Amino acid sequence: MKATLFNEDGTISLGERPDPTLHEPTDALVRVVRGCVCGSDLWYYRGINKHRAGSIGHEFIGVVEAIGSAVTTLKVGDLVIAPFTFNDGTCPACVAGFTANCFHGGSFGDGIHDGGQGERVRSPFADATLVPVPRPEGGFTDDLLASLTALSDVACTGYHAAVSAGVGPGDTVAVVGDGAVGLSAVQAAKLLGAKRIIALSRHPERQAVAWKFGATDVVETRGDAAVEDVLKLTDGVGVDAALECVGTDQSIATCVGIVRAGGRIGAVGVPTYQEFQYRTVFWKNVRLGGGVAHARHYIDQLLPHVLDGSINPGLVFDFATDLDHVAEAYSAMDERRAIKSLLVVSEP
Amino acid sequence: MKATLFNEDGTISLGERPDPTLHEPTDALVRVVRGCVCGSDLWYYRGINKHRAGSIGHEFIGVVEAIGSAVTTLKVGDLVIAPFTFNDGTCPACVAGFTANCFHGGSFGDGIHDGGQGERVRSPFADATLVPVPRPEGGFTDDLLASLTALSDVACTGYHAAVSAGVGPGDTVAVVGDGAVGLSAVQAAKLLGAKRIIALSRHPERQAVAWKFGATDVVETRGDAAVEDVLKLTDGVGVDAALECVGTDQSIATCVGIVRAGGRIGAVGVPTYQEFQYRTVFWKNVRLGGGVAHARHYIDQLLPHVLDGSINPGLVFDFATDLDHVAEAYSAMDERRAIKSLLVVSEP
Repeated sequence: MKATLFNEDGTISLGERPDPTLHEPTDALVRVVRGCVCGSDLWYYRGINKHRAGSIGHEFIGVVEAIGSAVTTLKVGDLVIAPFTFNDGTCPACVAGFTANCFHGGSFGDGIHDGGQGERVRSPFADATLVPVPRPEGGFTDDLLASLTALSDVACTGYHAAVSAGVGPGDTVAVVGDGAVGLSAVQAAKLLGAKRIIALSRHPERQAVAWKFGATDVVETRGDAAVEDVLKLTDGVGVDAALECVGTDQSIATCVGIVRAGGRIGAVGVPTYQEFQYRTVFWKNVRLGGGVAHARHYIDQLLPHVLDGSINPGLVFDFATDLDHVAEAYSAMDERRAIKSLLVVSEP
Repeated sequence: MKATLFNEDGTISLGERPDPTLHEPTDALVRVVRGCVCGSDLWYYRGINKHRAGSIGHEFIGVVEAIGSAVTTLKVGDLVIAPFTFNDGTCPACVAGFTANCFHGGSFGDGIHDGGQGERVRSPFADATLVPVPRPEGGFTDDLLASLTALSDVACTGYHAAVSAGVGPGDTVAVVGDGAVGLSAVQAAKLLGAKRIIALSRHPERQAVAWKFGATDVVETRGDAAVEDVLKLTDGVGVDAALECVGTDQSIATCVGIVRAGGRIGAVGVPTYQEFQYRTVFWKNVRLGGGVAHARHYIDQLLPHVLDGSINPGLVFDFATDLDHVAEAYSAMDERRAIKSLLVVSEP
């Protein structure tokens, strides 16, 4: 089958990988309908984080083509959302809802397991991992498919930032990072009832999405100037919750600077920071949470809002192409011509 | 008046400070009944943290001797608990409950403001800061006075660890640190409904208090061995909440090692750690909170439990002396002959 390859030299190309087959009775084979490129894929692409040579792409939706003998909740022909990590659903981490920390889980597109930037994927633990979506009467529109694809990772990761920061009704929230995750965090804060949502963004096209997702204020500055501007907007107090959606020393420092005493930081940007010390927030009584989103757990919460049209997380995709042009999907994001690139692989 | 002095050379001695007077209409003058020595005072005593020369001692209870013209909730003769930080009660931090982060607050016994290890204290913001305690029919017993003194800081700081870690009914909790704060954290976890409370302690006399406060298990090892032992006790999963009541690199590392994926750490040990990096817990989805306890806020929650006898936080005091022997109160704790030293200054 055709599949995107992460090469030894760090480049991305379309190549060939073996057609997947059922290994375990709990497996399912999925034909990929939509895949996409994650901000974390860019870290690999840029050589900032390491990735094993081989398969890549951990976000996708697709149609079930075959199921193992032990699979009971899925049938051939179902359209399913794959959370970016697979999980067994029974270990203590899964039972506690932290599916991304499954004792026996892993990530799609990690070099070994099939990736979502390819034609087909074998999903381990298919019952526990894949979420079937009822087929609408008129069929799936492109917009709906994009939003379902967003549930695979980015919408859930933004939601994790807001949940980890304990965002609730009436809160004043600031989102640091205007990538697809940051924009999704704006949407999540809105969904969780935040009254005021300050998006830190200097890019007009990203600001436009932030406004659509529920931002009430936009701050265009960065670093110390951004801290000053957010404090001005909050009468010198700071925000109840700061959502860290980048992962650099500057972005976490901005969060620490803008959060009020006793406030909360939800951090989901893959941490590349080196200087930040937790002890610096001790005196401010700041609570810091986050990590790798348990997308499988959150999809159940977010899918109904997508299906009833109350949220439209697919708006983060402003570039689409096909598998043959996957390198362009990466370069568009790398060059900041795109917020997030969708890959149209097949039709449902 | 007689008052303990923290001297330029880091020693502790009983000396003289000016008798306090009312400065502001919101002040009250308090005759100290009981003071005590805090674990954080020991850090100063040992030269690990800095303290300004002058007054010392931030924990006390006492009897109101005079009130400013604007004070409305207190009257002369009231026995009051002083939280270790004073606060105005009206700033955004106070309104949010984070009284220790008051915009106009400060700490008793900071070198300048009168300390609780002396005969008298001027309390700023008396209405917002001091908590009057109804005088029992038979008068205050020594045990009750000890427990009320514990509410000034240590019981509230232990409670803050448990609250910051989100301890709730049914949780499995581990407490790292068997000082008075750690023991108080055991008590707090019990009060908040924890089902299993693992106390890390190798000292029989501290274990005895931990058992009384509600510990269900005691682990005597430290460092990696303690991590291994706690994981064994929890079927390899780890605890829902780890309470960090020391503040060293080893103690925070132990918390990180024993907390389950998606678990919570409540950290109240004054952080002297240098190596610990928050990013190491990101992948484990661990939430980390804590800081300086807002004792004023918590006293309202804990005082009823003290008055009805359901908790007895004064059990952390296993050594008592008077002001004349304050140096002995420090050395007993420094040499680990005492868990926590009470100072009997006057009678209510």
